[in-house]
Amino acid sequence: MKRWQQKIHEVIFGYHTTAGRVFDLSLLVAIVASVLVVMLESVKDLEQHYGEEMRIIEWVFTFLFSIEYIARIVSSPRPLKYITSFMGIVDLLSLIPTYLSFFFVGTHSLSVIRSFRLIRVFRILKLTHFMGGAQQLATALWGSRHKIIVFMGTVSCIVVIAGTMMYLIEGGQNGFTSIPKSIYWAIVTITTVGYGDIAPQTIFGQTAASILMILGYAIIAVPTGIVTSQMMADARRLGTITCSNCGEEDLPNRSRFCLNCASRLNNPPDQK
Amino acid sequence: MKRWQQKIHEVIFGYHTTAGRVFDLSLLVAIVASVLVVMLESVKDLEQHYGEEMRIIEWVFTFLFSIEYIARIVSSPRPLKYITSFMGIVDLLSLIPTYLSFFFVGTHSLSVIRSFRLIRVFRILKLTHFMGGAQQLATALWGSRHKIIVFMGTVSCIVVIAGTMMYLIEGGQNGFTSIPKSIYWAIVTITTVGYGDIAPQTIFGQTAASILMILGYAIIAVPTGIVTSQMMADARRLGTITCSNCGEEDLPNRSRFCLNCASRLNNPPDQK
Amino acid sequence: MKRWQQKIHEVIFGYHTTAGRVFDLSLLVAIVASVLVVMLESVKDLEQHYGEEMRIIEWVFTFLFSIEYIARIVSSPRPLKYITSFMGIVDLLSLIPTYLSFFFVGTHSLSVIRSFRLIRVFRILKLTHFMGGAQQLATALWGSRHKIIVFMGTVSCIVVIAGTMMYLIEGGQNGFTSIPKSIYWAIVTITTVGYGDIAPQTIFGQTAASILMILGYAIIAVPTGIVTSQMMADARRLGTITCSNCGEEDLPNRSRFCLNCASRLNNPPDQK
Amino acid sequence: MKRWQQKIHEVIFGYHTTAGRVFDLSLLVAIVASVLVVMLESVKDLEQHYGEEMRIIEWVFTFLFSIEYIARIVSSPRPLKYITSFMGIVDLLSLIPTYLSFFFVGTHSLSVIRSFRLIRVFRILKLTHFMGGAQQLATALWGSRHKIIVFMGTVSCIVVIAGTMMYLIEGGQNGFTSIPKSIYWAIVTITTVGYGDIAPQTIFGQTAASILMILGYAIIAVPTGIVTSQMMADARRLGTITCSNCGEEDLPNRSRFCLNCASRLNNPPDQK
Repeated sequence: MKRWQQKIHEVIFGYHTTAGRVFDLSLLVAIVASVLVVMLESVKDLEQHYGEEMRIIEWVFTFLFSIEYIARIVSSPRPLKYITSFMGIVDLLSLIPTYLSFFFVGTHSLSVIRSFRLIRVFRILKLTHFMGGAQQLATALWGSRHKIIVFMGTVSCIVVIAGTMMYLIEGGQNGFTSIPKSIYWAIVTITTVGYGDIAPQTIFGQTAASILMILGYAIIAVPTGIVTSQMMADARRLGTITCSNCGEEDLPNRSRFCLNCASRLNNPPDQK
Repeated sequence: MKRWQQKIHEVIFGYHTTAGRVFDLSLLVAIVASVLVVMLESVKDLEQHYGEEMRIIEWVFTFLFSIEYIARIVSSPRPLKYITSFMGIVDLLSLIPTYLSFFFVGTHSLSVIRSFRLIRVFRILKLTHFMGGAQQLATALWGSRHKIIVFMGTVSCIVVIAGTMMYLIEGGQNGFTSIPKSIYWAIVTITTVGYGDIAPQTIFGQTAASILMILGYAIIAVPTGIVTSQMMADARRLGTITCSNCGEEDLPNRSRFCLNCASRLNNPPDQK
Repeated sequence: MKRWQQKIHEVIFGYHTTAGRVFDLSLLVAIVASVLVVMLESVKDLEQHYGEEMRIIEWVFTFLFSIEYIARIVSSPRPLKYITSFMGIVDLLSLIPTYLSFFFVGTHSLSVIRSFRLIRVFRILKLTHFMGGAQQLATALWGSRHKIIVFMGTVSCIVVIAGTMMYLIEGGQNGFTSIPKSIYWAIVTITTVGYGDIAPQTIFGQTAASILMILGYAIIAVPTGIVTSQMMADARRLGTITCSNCGEEDLPNRSRFCLNCASRLNNPPDQK
Repeated sequence: MKRWQQKIHEVIFGYHTTAGRVFDLSLLVAIVASVLVVMLESVKDLEQHYGEEMRIIEWVFTFLFSIEYIARIVSSPRPLKYITSFMGIVDLLSLIPTYLSFFFVGTHSLSVIRSFRLIRVFRILKLTHFMGGAQQLATALWGSRHKIIVFMGTVSCIVVIAGTMMYLIEGGQNGFTSIPKSIYWAIVTITTVGYGDIAPQTIFGQTAASILMILGYAIIAVPTGIVTSQMMADARRLGTITCSNCGEEDLPNRSRFCLNCASRLNNPPDQK
């Protein structure tokens, strides 16, 4: 790997140098700005007045991101691995629509996919402060995955059965025209979103809906309890010590003796 | 009990053998697929185009589930107990509608009850990973049942009284045509679902509704607090033992020696 | 106090004897049944068909509750204190409407106040199981009252200011006809109820509404956090021991010496 | 600083003397009353009947608040610092609109800004009881700021991408006329507000919306978990000290002797 490659790699992928941080910040601003342009382009009024200007700005951003994409490939120690990685694919996908709209007419509607480039801001999570926070959240969610799957499975079953029942009770004339639509209504209801585009009209339907609402209102406590208790268990584990004799981990930090080998512990007072 | 019965029993009810797991997984796929067919059958457009195909698929699934049902009965050590168990009844109920629709015209609307067969997927919870998660959730909910009943009772009273008041304040011309309907509105409001099919129009009604909303928004904290604190208390209790020598409590249950007095612990490995 | 008074008192106010429990349960059933009649009476269809029957049932319940009310007064050691207590007033108020409707025409609309007699079911909380749960909930809510008031005050201010801003941004033509109505909208939005009877139409209004929604979504975490941490702090306090030497309370139950007088503690292993 | 200045300062800024508390309470009542007048003035009916009276009341309040504002300036040890402080600016801003409406016609619509003077009630938080609660809430939120930013960033990305997808799926004819409007819908949905002014009509849109709703329903657990675990970690940290002899941690901070080794603790009474 050449010296100039290493230099570029440090700036683009790293975040320890000043240059690296300035690059990250500029990229963040550029991504957000380009997504804003995509969003505003979809507003009819603005498109008619500033359409030309916005297309020019879009081309500038696409040009910059193209250079960045090439720089990432050439500076990467294993270019193919980068190209086929999730972030590499997102980087490429956020460039393609602009080029496509140049060559083919009618692909403009596709060009809104460019707003998916917002996913790229997650790179900035490399910034250490937030990495810690993100890590803890991810750990808590991962640690409670079994309970979350059980919970989600139960909610899915409730929603399918409630949807079927409402299809039977209310029927097509009240908006419950099919079971999938009724299930959609049940999801709208149990998550307490409640659009009101479909709502029960009969007394039996309203009674069944009431039960579903109260259920939804009460069981929101379950995922909350899962995540909270997982987070706190994780937090507690952080405050533990390790035996220097046998290497046993996760000892409560009030321990005077190792719970595994019974050797006396020297509890350094400065440990966090 | 004969050998072939034991063999079948192992596959159908067990999950320790490879055959048992393959069976469970196939059953899961079959149940979900058959429920999907029931759902799609209720969509008018699809029914008109693929009605015949979907009825054939349904008969195939019903045939397979019938074989499974018979296999469960013959391989069960106590067939009658299985038939009268909750799961046994669900198994039977999910077969009947298809046969009924064959013999009687007009029972087709009943046939959507087949989607209740989704309940059968809960068998798969036998898979150990999820069993643990489900167990913990159930324990937490059961342990806090008194508080949940008190909470639900209080919410019920609030909802009835709020409904009555709104019936008085708003009256029939604004959609609050009867007390049951007003109570339905109160449930829609306190659970923060908020369809908007019935909404207060007068200034007094809107004030009363505001109070109810804030109440609903605030008291969601109560079930959450109940379940969370119960879950954490359970988590703490499950994981600890007490030293019989010095009385030190809250020792991690993998402990071989007391962390306080270093005496050896007789840690029965099977304690829960 | 005479013997027969004591006997009645035991049955009506007590819950230790079998007679007392049977009375409580009968009362619970009677209250719920009578409130159901009040509710159904407000449904036009039912009123026209079964109006006469329901009025008779109502008179039977009123008669029974009147007897109960008199029995409570005569058996009470201090009748005046009972009559002027909250529950005494509720008991009386739930009787008056029926008698009023007999003497005065046109007071029938007032008679729905009878459904307030549902408050009377809270007597049943005397039943010990639920008393514990209710007590813990009440303690947790009372212990965190300062934080809850601060939270509610902050939400009130946010709602008033958001309402004023939306009145300026959207104005009367989009449904925000006055500041009180805009505040009503803000409450509907921040509590995530979202009826949709009033909704922002302009791009600025929708942006402001988005901020309010995200705020409401995020700060629901605050009351939940308050109540949960209070509940767990309360739960932890339950697991403490008291020094038999100096009477110091709330010692962590791993204590070997009193933290106040340094006397050795005999940590009885069976304490809860 | 003169004696009379000190006297005024004590009453206006202090809360230890009776006069100071009476002043605080009067101010609280005056602020709330004046904001109520602003609110009621915006109601057309009331404005037509009591417009004159309300304007007089407004002038009385403005006069009183002007005196208060001058008193704050003259009694402040560093007047310029007060004037340029956040609270000083709010104090001034809540006076200006009334004077402006006197000199210029057409600035009346601006006068609703007066309701922003509600912010001034936060001064009352000086009252010690609530200060503690507010402090704890602020500490918990500040301590978990990194996690909250990560969470908010993730939600923002989800909302932008979901909005773009719905714009593609549903298109303008179903109300999703532009990406910003679709993002507004995504926020309304993920926060479970659900106005229903825009709602998906196609089967694909409803499926995508269902996923977004369930996501919103599930991830509400994350901020709740963050705040709750932070609050409890804070609560634990505030209340404990460590023995300098044996290193035992988590001792209640009223401890005079170590609960493990009984050595005397030097417990500085002012430690937080």
